[in-house]
Amino acid sequence: MTDLRSHRIAALAEGISTAHMDGLLVTGSANVRYLTGFSGSSALLFVTAREAVLITDFRYQTQAAEEVGDLARIVIEPQSLWTGLWQNLAQLNYVEVAGFESAHLVHRDFQRLLESGSRCQWRPTLDLVEVLRERKDEDEVARIRAAVAAAERALELTMSSVGAGMSELAIAGVLESALRQAGSDGFPFPSIVASGPNAALPHARPTPRLLAKGDFLLLDFGARVGGYCSDITRTFIVGRASSEQREVYEVVRLANERATRAVRPGMTGRDADGVARGYIEDRGFGDLFGHSLGHGIGLEVHEAPRLAKTAEGTLVEGAVVTVEPGIYRPGWGGVRIEDDVHLCADGTQVLTRFPRELIEIG
Amino acid sequence: MTDLRSHRIAALAEGISTAHMDGLLVTGSANVRYLTGFSGSSALLFVTAREAVLITDFRYQTQAAEEVGDLARIVIEPQSLWTGLWQNLAQLNYVEVAGFESAHLVHRDFQRLLESGSRCQWRPTLDLVEVLRERKDEDEVARIRAAVAAAERALELTMSSVGAGMSELAIAGVLESALRQAGSDGFPFPSIVASGPNAALPHARPTPRLLAKGDFLLLDFGARVGGYCSDITRTFIVGRASSEQREVYEVVRLANERATRAVRPGMTGRDADGVARGYIEDRGFGDLFGHSLGHGIGLEVHEAPRLAKTAEGTLVEGAVVTVEPGIYRPGWGGVRIEDDVHLCADGTQVLTRFPRELIEIG
Repeated sequence: MTDLRSHRIAALAEGISTAHMDGLLVTGSANVRYLTGFSGSSALLFVTAREAVLITDFRYQTQAAEEVGDLARIVIEPQSLWTGLWQNLAQLNYVEVAGFESAHLVHRDFQRLLESGSRCQWRPTLDLVEVLRERKDEDEVARIRAAVAAAERALELTMSSVGAGMSELAIAGVLESALRQAGSDGFPFPSIVASGPNAALPHARPTPRLLAKGDFLLLDFGARVGGYCSDITRTFIVGRASSEQREVYEVVRLANERATRAVRPGMTGRDADGVARGYIEDRGFGDLFGHSLGHGIGLEVHEAPRLAKTAEGTLVEGAVVTVEPGIYRPGWGGVRIEDDVHLCADGTQVLTRFPRELIEIG
Repeated sequence: MTDLRSHRIAALAEGISTAHMDGLLVTGSANVRYLTGFSGSSALLFVTAREAVLITDFRYQTQAAEEVGDLARIVIEPQSLWTGLWQNLAQLNYVEVAGFESAHLVHRDFQRLLESGSRCQWRPTLDLVEVLRERKDEDEVARIRAAVAAAERALELTMSSVGAGMSELAIAGVLESALRQAGSDGFPFPSIVASGPNAALPHARPTPRLLAKGDFLLLDFGARVGGYCSDITRTFIVGRASSEQREVYEVVRLANERATRAVRPGMTGRDADGVARGYIEDRGFGDLFGHSLGHGIGLEVHEAPRLAKTAEGTLVEGAVVTVEPGIYRPGWGGVRIEDDVHLCADGTQVLTRFPRELIEIG
């Protein structure tokens, strides 16, 4: 791991130099973690071709030492991280032009750069670390695989105890407890447990609603292992599926299947999205698939690349993305089937293995 | 609830007018929720003295209609929320000077204002909504009370099944499942379950470490009910406490007790912090209490006010804050006891009731 992080910092230093800058202030917390291993919520990282300085606070003293080792100089700042930054920048007198992360610095902190950090000339940058993160290395893929395995074990355990009469909240409790048992060290995003009409809300939160016969039950959740996320969705039927439910389910299942088979490095995100969207439109449900097909996963549950109508960029080899078509009819319910896919040199490897056929429960 | 939200929007409109502006772009998601009830993760809200416009995307179509009602005009934007904003701003021709939230707008989006939103003159603002949120109204206090009750029910349930040999991860699973059973609709922050030396890490994440006799077991977690958070910490001993553990525990317990009794509206955050810090320093543990005493809770688990050495501001009536002194010795363990406190007209009401005396378990 130490080696890989050194490579990452070296690759970033190259990007900084190519952009004609002497250093980069890294404020995105996933970017800080990617480069140094530090997993705390409060840090400023300054990277140059010669060194890396991580400024954090007392709460993370022990943790930073353990996680970062000698990959960066660690500064524990008692007052404000920004005071620590100015003090340390003052010592790096070879830094004349420095970048900051335009997508990860709020305006208030940008003002600090102009006011107090004026010894440097500051330049906004976009995605210098994100482009590195898009291509997962072996260690990262192994962690995502472990997070997928944990999520699938938890789902199996959960489905064995779910049935009509249980509340969405209780199901979320069983699922999240199973995720912990499976080794998940956190929840990458709020679990969605949506039944009946709630399944029509793509971002529903669990409610006290009780599962009833004839309901859809949609579970969208993930595990986090070694910092890396999985993200999976399955939709079940409580009792027996109606013919309409079966029809919608099959359209989504086949859209998912076509897209996971088609997606590969070199394709644009728009074309990948188009495979699933085109199929759903042809079957007459185009208006009911209002979100995009998928997104990259890694240290964050939403990261580059995007698989969407407006995504002109080319999917790179090594990315791990979700493929998650859905059909939602307000008041009636919805179906989404989501897999995690690794875009390898020789095509596509679907990491999620939980069955995609319609399952009728309880 | 509708009435309270109307009051909030009216109060904000007054603040906007006092700052000599015609409107405010609200981008902080907790601020959006406070004003409109909308709980989705993706929205732009523009508020003037005459109207409020909420721009969101397809995923939230049904949810926005249900949550916001007629409190704001809802715009579902198929492409970018920003495109929707420019189109709607073009229609508000009385808006000449508009504010944006400096602490909730990343530099990249700030650039959009300069480039595309140039019909208005844009001004950075700080805390216009946050100062309103600091004074909780009756409805908000009721929700926080419900979140406290859910957290305490979950803690009772958890403690009845915890003992030596269980892993931190398994305990987190039991605790989080109990939180769901108690009606928590989410986790306001990653649960901390830290045992033995891990209890010395103020922001530890649960690990596979097994509880052993003689360990501290520190649980810091919260529930979320109706959008509002609770935040509670208790520290237990597995087996019998050593005299050193007992001594440290008592110092923290008494620091907590003194501070919860002393804190009241009109006091500065620094003085509140000083009550606990002074006591811990007098007992010789000052170096081991490296974080601040507490923070406001509400829609967010960290919001105004701060109770800290550097907090010059006066605590306002109606705020709900945490009081959470701690002592941490790296490699040995740590103790933190955290309560939630409502600052009422007549002083202080401690909302958390779970016992604070040292409990030896399993």
